[in-house]
Amino acid sequence: MTRVPIAGVGMTKFGKNGERTARELFAEAAGKAFEDSGLSPDDVDEVYYGNFMGEIAEQQGHSGPLAADAAGVTAPATRIESACASSGAAVRHGVNRVRNGDVDVVLVGGAERMTNLSTADGTAGLAAAADALWEIKAGVTFPGAYSLMANRYFHEHGGSREDLAEVAVKNHDHAVENELAQFQMEIDVDKVLDAPTVCSPFGLFDCSPMSDGGSAALLVSEDFADDHDLGEVAITGTGQDGDRLALHDRVSMTRTPAAERAAEMAYDDAGIGPDDIDVAEVHDCFTIAEVLAIEALGFYEQGEGITAATNGETAIDGDLPVNLSGGLKAKGHPVGATGGAQISELTKILRGDHVNSDAVSDAEIGLTHNAGGTVASCVVNVLEVMN
Amino acid sequence: MTRVPIAGVGMTKFGKNGERTARELFAEAAGKAFEDSGLSPDDVDEVYYGNFMGEIAEQQGHSGPLAADAAGVTAPATRIESACASSGAAVRHGVNRVRNGDVDVVLVGGAERMTNLSTADGTAGLAAAADALWEIKAGVTFPGAYSLMANRYFHEHGGSREDLAEVAVKNHDHAVENELAQFQMEIDVDKVLDAPTVCSPFGLFDCSPMSDGGSAALLVSEDFADDHDLGEVAITGTGQDGDRLALHDRVSMTRTPAAERAAEMAYDDAGIGPDDIDVAEVHDCFTIAEVLAIEALGFYEQGEGITAATNGETAIDGDLPVNLSGGLKAKGHPVGATGGAQISELTKILRGDHVNSDAVSDAEIGLTHNAGGTVASCVVNVLEVMN
Repeated sequence: MTRVPIAGVGMTKFGKNGERTARELFAEAAGKAFEDSGLSPDDVDEVYYGNFMGEIAEQQGHSGPLAADAAGVTAPATRIESACASSGAAVRHGVNRVRNGDVDVVLVGGAERMTNLSTADGTAGLAAAADALWEIKAGVTFPGAYSLMANRYFHEHGGSREDLAEVAVKNHDHAVENELAQFQMEIDVDKVLDAPTVCSPFGLFDCSPMSDGGSAALLVSEDFADDHDLGEVAITGTGQDGDRLALHDRVSMTRTPAAERAAEMAYDDAGIGPDDIDVAEVHDCFTIAEVLAIEALGFYEQGEGITAATNGETAIDGDLPVNLSGGLKAKGHPVGATGGAQISELTKILRGDHVNSDAVSDAEIGLTHNAGGTVASCVVNVLEVMN
Repeated sequence: MTRVPIAGVGMTKFGKNGERTARELFAEAAGKAFEDSGLSPDDVDEVYYGNFMGEIAEQQGHSGPLAADAAGVTAPATRIESACASSGAAVRHGVNRVRNGDVDVVLVGGAERMTNLSTADGTAGLAAAADALWEIKAGVTFPGAYSLMANRYFHEHGGSREDLAEVAVKNHDHAVENELAQFQMEIDVDKVLDAPTVCSPFGLFDCSPMSDGGSAALLVSEDFADDHDLGEVAITGTGQDGDRLALHDRVSMTRTPAAERAAEMAYDDAGIGPDDIDVAEVHDCFTIAEVLAIEALGFYEQGEGITAATNGETAIDGDLPVNLSGGLKAKGHPVGATGGAQISELTKILRGDHVNSDAVSDAEIGLTHNAGGTVASCVVNVLEVMN
């Protein structure tokens, strides 16, 4: 299908900024995207805004037009809510909107304000991404749900807490120089293993943090990009799929078919396969999630992704660097902003203006994998350097 | 642009069904749409689900895949949240998705469960469609916001409580035979004027009710419709726009520019103008809202819509029947289902199988107007009988 150039990207620093509203966070990110592109709010024809828990954190729904207004835009504006995949889905809908052929510039992204809530209230709010009729009533929060998946993975395929810890260590390594990341600090395996237990087998460092932040990207038509000399990188493929929300309704707890199908759709759309991917940003909300992601995306056979980080294969100097931004683990995870932030970071990585670009200077094709809930939603986008 | 045939529609009876979950309500509506079309869940390529206050009413977000699953569908599923315009926006996104050219069948609609909440909690939940930083803190709920608009309208243009009452009386009249409507009862002007005051100038009968309900429609490509002999009615135009959420940020309290622009976009898309519309379903959450709608849609000059119901012009036997379904006022207003229900009802009206079809048997072109908040979001869809 038609490729959709990325004219500009931006994100806030992720971290603890609970005094700022989601609209402020998005406005900052959008402002950076405008600056990056040279475009102005008046150029925008449509807005897709990802936000997950605004009703809970800010008593604020209806945030599509609110976010557009904060960014200075008057245009059709729609809030997309797909749990932690909200802004990945916003990006996909921006791509599809440009492909309709009647608009030239679409602003996509998202924001989340979380740290104004207590950890207990935030955890309860996040649980709205699970099946409220069953999982929430059973007391399953997301660390609990993913720990079930991790323990089952160990049972079916082997692997160890150390292997999971290596995922966190790698992603922290990648974030050290990334000034937009929440945690710019190295950790080691012992630190991960010795951290307080959140839900076995996860310690504190197996879990992505609560974060506040915003992200944005400007997607444009090819004609517009040509006319304005924009878009060194384009989205060439996009895919999305869903699954049953509750883990107990799934055939397997260690496979993520929504991600498999989203990836297949995105690969088909771009006319490529997993072997063509040079670099990837995947949804490592918990360490096991990165393992499941790289298997679902076709980089590893099922049961073989667990040692990827341990073997250095997904590190910055590995065969397939994963989460050069630091991932959700170290960059932070303001839920509604995460999918857009993957696009922002990967665009910079591929353009050559990311702090980790030099290590992957030959990279031409990248991929983002953004998941909601226990991967009951997944969006995969393929990005390519325009030639 | 390409027309998008409607292969089938369905909705639940609207009313007080607070013991049923939103997913159940949507599943029933979708089941009716499948039955109406002869299609099956396996035919569906994508789902757009409108829901506004699931987090508040059911502790349930991430409801796109949940709704798809309840309807028996495995496909990319996205929740669209645009306050009371959520499923109108879902319909527009279904139209755009079909127009991308790579899918044939899209399930759209929405659901809302509201009456399991107390009236106070429901009113507080609905307030999340306003600007939480300002309006909610000032104590402005939606009856309050629309009453400000009504009082200002009286000040600028004249009109009376009796004129508003005539809107409610008309819409109740239309609903008497509609078995899906929440209130199948006639009222008269005296009853409206004598009802308890909600917020001056509104009495109880100037306000749409809290309701539970679901709605669905199956949108298909023209090729698919031709191959399967489907789609007596098609969506031929769609438009959406936004505005600043807070009333105090607007230039006027008696104009709804988001609706004006959405209508212009939809008319242009369909290649028609307001004079071509034979019948309309508009967003009468409060009586004044119908007045503002018929002006924004170009049926009346500004300041002249107030007497339309009084003069019988928008009644079933008038020049331009408005809200033959009973409207939000009498049909009910389960927020996330409303835009989809407008499509369901209007499709039947135009096909000739609605209880009120006979009165408008010559009608060929209809329009839906679905608004969010104080029209900070608006979606307009144009439907035409296929020839």
